[in-house]
Amino acid sequence: MRIAMAQIDTVVGGVAANETKVAEHIRRAKAAGAQLVVFPEMALVGYPLLDLVYRPTLLKKQREALERIAREASGIAAVVGFIDQDPARFGGDGRSLVYNAAALVKDGKILAVHRKNLLPEYDVFFERRYFAPGSGVTVVEVDGVRIGLEICEDLWDTYYETKVTSRIVAAGADVIVNVSASPFHIGKGEERRRLLRRHIDHCGKPIVYVNQVGAEDGYEGELVFDGDSLAIDGRGRVVAHAPRFEEALVTFDLDAVSGAGMQAVADDPVEEDEQAFLALVRGVKDYAARTGFKKSLLGLSGGIDSAVVAVIAAHALGPQNVLGISMPSRYSSDHSKDDARILAQNLGLEYRTIPIEGVHQAYLAALVPSLGSEPLGLTEENLQARIRGALLMAHSNHHNLLLLSTGNKTEVALGYCTLYGDMNGGLTVLADVSKERVYGIARHVNRAAGRDVIPKNSIDKVPSAELRPGQVDPFDYAAVSPLADLLVEDEVEVDEAVARGYDRELVERLARLVRISEYKRRQAAPGIRITARAFGVGRRMPISWPGEST
Amino acid sequence: MRIAMAQIDTVVGGVAANETKVAEHIRRAKAAGAQLVVFPEMALVGYPLLDLVYRPTLLKKQREALERIAREASGIAAVVGFIDQDPARFGGDGRSLVYNAAALVKDGKILAVHRKNLLPEYDVFFERRYFAPGSGVTVVEVDGVRIGLEICEDLWDTYYETKVTSRIVAAGADVIVNVSASPFHIGKGEERRRLLRRHIDHCGKPIVYVNQVGAEDGYEGELVFDGDSLAIDGRGRVVAHAPRFEEALVTFDLDAVSGAGMQAVADDPVEEDEQAFLALVRGVKDYAARTGFKKSLLGLSGGIDSAVVAVIAAHALGPQNVLGISMPSRYSSDHSKDDARILAQNLGLEYRTIPIEGVHQAYLAALVPSLGSEPLGLTEENLQARIRGALLMAHSNHHNLLLLSTGNKTEVALGYCTLYGDMNGGLTVLADVSKERVYGIARHVNRAAGRDVIPKNSIDKVPSAELRPGQVDPFDYAAVSPLADLLVEDEVEVDEAVARGYDRELVERLARLVRISEYKRRQAAPGIRITARAFGVGRRMPISWPGEST
Repeated sequence: MRIAMAQIDTVVGGVAANETKVAEHIRRAKAAGAQLVVFPEMALVGYPLLDLVYRPTLLKKQREALERIAREASGIAAVVGFIDQDPARFGGDGRSLVYNAAALVKDGKILAVHRKNLLPEYDVFFERRYFAPGSGVTVVEVDGVRIGLEICEDLWDTYYETKVTSRIVAAGADVIVNVSASPFHIGKGEERRRLLRRHIDHCGKPIVYVNQVGAEDGYEGELVFDGDSLAIDGRGRVVAHAPRFEEALVTFDLDAVSGAGMQAVADDPVEEDEQAFLALVRGVKDYAARTGFKKSLLGLSGGIDSAVVAVIAAHALGPQNVLGISMPSRYSSDHSKDDARILAQNLGLEYRTIPIEGVHQAYLAALVPSLGSEPLGLTEENLQARIRGALLMAHSNHHNLLLLSTGNKTEVALGYCTLYGDMNGGLTVLADVSKERVYGIARHVNRAAGRDVIPKNSIDKVPSAELRPGQVDPFDYAAVSPLADLLVEDEVEVDEAVARGYDRELVERLARLVRISEYKRRQAAPGIRITARAFGVGRRMPISWPGEST
Repeated sequence: MRIAMAQIDTVVGGVAANETKVAEHIRRAKAAGAQLVVFPEMALVGYPLLDLVYRPTLLKKQREALERIAREASGIAAVVGFIDQDPARFGGDGRSLVYNAAALVKDGKILAVHRKNLLPEYDVFFERRYFAPGSGVTVVEVDGVRIGLEICEDLWDTYYETKVTSRIVAAGADVIVNVSASPFHIGKGEERRRLLRRHIDHCGKPIVYVNQVGAEDGYEGELVFDGDSLAIDGRGRVVAHAPRFEEALVTFDLDAVSGAGMQAVADDPVEEDEQAFLALVRGVKDYAARTGFKKSLLGLSGGIDSAVVAVIAAHALGPQNVLGISMPSRYSSDHSKDDARILAQNLGLEYRTIPIEGVHQAYLAALVPSLGSEPLGLTEENLQARIRGALLMAHSNHHNLLLLSTGNKTEVALGYCTLYGDMNGGLTVLADVSKERVYGIARHVNRAAGRDVIPKNSIDKVPSAELRPGQVDPFDYAAVSPLADLLVEDEVEVDEAVARGYDRELVERLARLVRISEYKRRQAAPGIRITARAFGVGRRMPISWPGEST
């Protein structure tokens, strides 16, 4: 059987655009001789659809689109994700039940519908909010081959009592088709392969795994779908592989009787910092495209974070579409200004300098009658960050530029950032990138370019916000960056972190900072998720709680 | 049987504090001769606990606390909400299962545990993220009376196939005890009474309904729990009633054989604007207390929104703990400055004036080399809002004051607000209060005070942001405020709104504004929920989607 994997990027809530794209890929797959073409989860409506699931007009339109797609699939079978409705049954809030479903259509008919059995309700997923679980197993014959249908989580059954894949095989499937919208995090590709091979070891059947590509709004954070669609044959060999982070239509042949593919294809792993970089580039590119921005801007401080964001933006949007602004203050060092300028030159960005001294003075003059003439300390440090934030927003407003915020995950974890200041922006590019990973990406960038695109000095110097004389960041990032990850990503409690060798005083200090900074994160711009635990809807901590010792 | 309803305010994640409070109320109930004392849902851990559910140390502590509470309940039975664990079973993410549970304890023993059957997974609720559903019915005898236990949603069974209350009655319960953490919205008290009476009409058994009180972080918005605990006897008469928005221990007697209370008590409804006002006061008070603020500040513009927020803050924290700052610009009218000053005098607030002209000039000077010397239009309007936002934050930082943001729900819906400007703050007091309701609250305040605490001029004048000469708000709020509510709260689509009599052009304009302003709301400070559909986690719309016509 010749099968095509249609690894597409869909539009959330854009039924017409999705229908057009699906129809076009059906025609291309047919032209390539495919007997079956497989699209990602929810392909007709986009994923995650969020509360648009509740819109009756959208549900009606996508159902009508499915009927047209069935007719479009003339002489070829297509597996297409959509929303199946059951108007006669209700959820707890009185809405009629809907299902996350995949239809197998051919020659104008809907031959089978599988309703997703396993609905993830953890981390960034909240599918039980929208969908009722299906319970049936769906195996349907196409050209003599019995296709077993499943949707995303149905395959990730390690901890579930329901084992969908085993049931499909028991029901006689020759090949398992999994349609997914499974977001990327670093290492996900390896996890995915282990999972597929574990199932194949068990059942001996090939799995065709088709994943969505492109970055979407996961509510409180961008989810990047990496594609990375795979076909693994019954012997565990990768026989087809779509590229990562790009749309593709990949066709391959499978001997459905033996479960074997025609030949194995190369499937080399991608190094972690490169995975992260590619995901971030795709995240910026798609956020800008979805929200209608052609160009972006960011503040360039000469530090490592803004340098890495500038490189990502230049790759995502083209260097000619990125404006870098240096906003030196009375405390800025010469080397910072140089490093910012050199970076902009290396990348070919437009670069402007706007000193903040005049505004800084004017604020102090306005505040003296109310706050007195003593030095304002932290208040004045925040004020400088807010002046820069307002200058950047003036450019964003005036030129319609997407402002990229440059704080990293370690800073965001510890609250080492200023609300309405350096946190300003439409997207916090590094919100899920710890300080250590930022350095890793910087080194990857320079290595891949074969030259110091990011000035060596930005990588080597001691990090500083330069908001007062002689200031440096109050953290030893070599220790603090992995420890913050341990507390946040691995949800390790204080005693456990100490048991793993960290100094108790440091652990308690950091755990407290993470806890009391939640209020800042609630007002942060969305980040791009690249780890298994990002800030945002996947980690819902209270703004205030007394801490572990109470 | 003598029963005590312990309507308490718990600390989310504060097991020690909750245990102390529960123990104290058990002793007081016993001293009052009660045989049974009932606490709210999740009383030992607080509700909503959010991702603190995942903390093993907290789970262990609250389980140990329950054992101690069982011993404290000597000679009296107590129903206490806690988290029940099942270490042998797992959720989809591999965590062991936990249940939202209530224990009936007495004389050192846990006599019964009910696991919540119905777990809400809509609006602001996401209990399936944390809890597995219980399936059993729990009826336990205390002093010869058979007590049927249920938890919150178990009672709200209209659309569920499982009918917990009916099953409890079928299992022989003489009285139904419902422990709740059921958040307030306007009209909730009436809904609650209708629901209780519908069940009682059906089963003829008394219901003791004990609800938590106090405002808590619902993740992306404050949930206000109004208490309003009730006992309704088997004839449908209210025989005990705890106050709204306050802690209380209310004791009453019930003839368990006949299901009748000794006598009916008064149960007068509260007018809607007063409900809203009380909820907002409680919201501000508890947010400040939880986050450690004694004092607050806000910008006073002379308009209706900031006037209403000032009154709420003065009631919540005391007028001596509220700082009002007027920040006039070149475009501010004299009457605005007068109205702001008069309001501050009426309330007894501290009042300061900080003109923004100097900072405004300095920004323009800094921007001219980059943006040119032409008038900046909207950019400059936003800049003024951001100057005010930064001045307020300087005061917040320097004096440790909670900044209250003053935008209302209609503005937030339509994006008529400036990120990093007037949206700055720890709490957006009116985020769930439409413009029409703001006026209603203002009239309520003046009526209740018997004088114009809020200047009549602030109520009567045409709303204006005063960011350019002669500017007034570009909305006829009499039409726009209810229409925005229709689109947001009632999720009405464009055609339906037109069918209900609204002008199509207006509907389309507003629907578009609501749609494209989502990015601002994602960075908004938490609001206080007072309607059945607030912005925040209860309404998860994408930042970008093509709109209904696609």
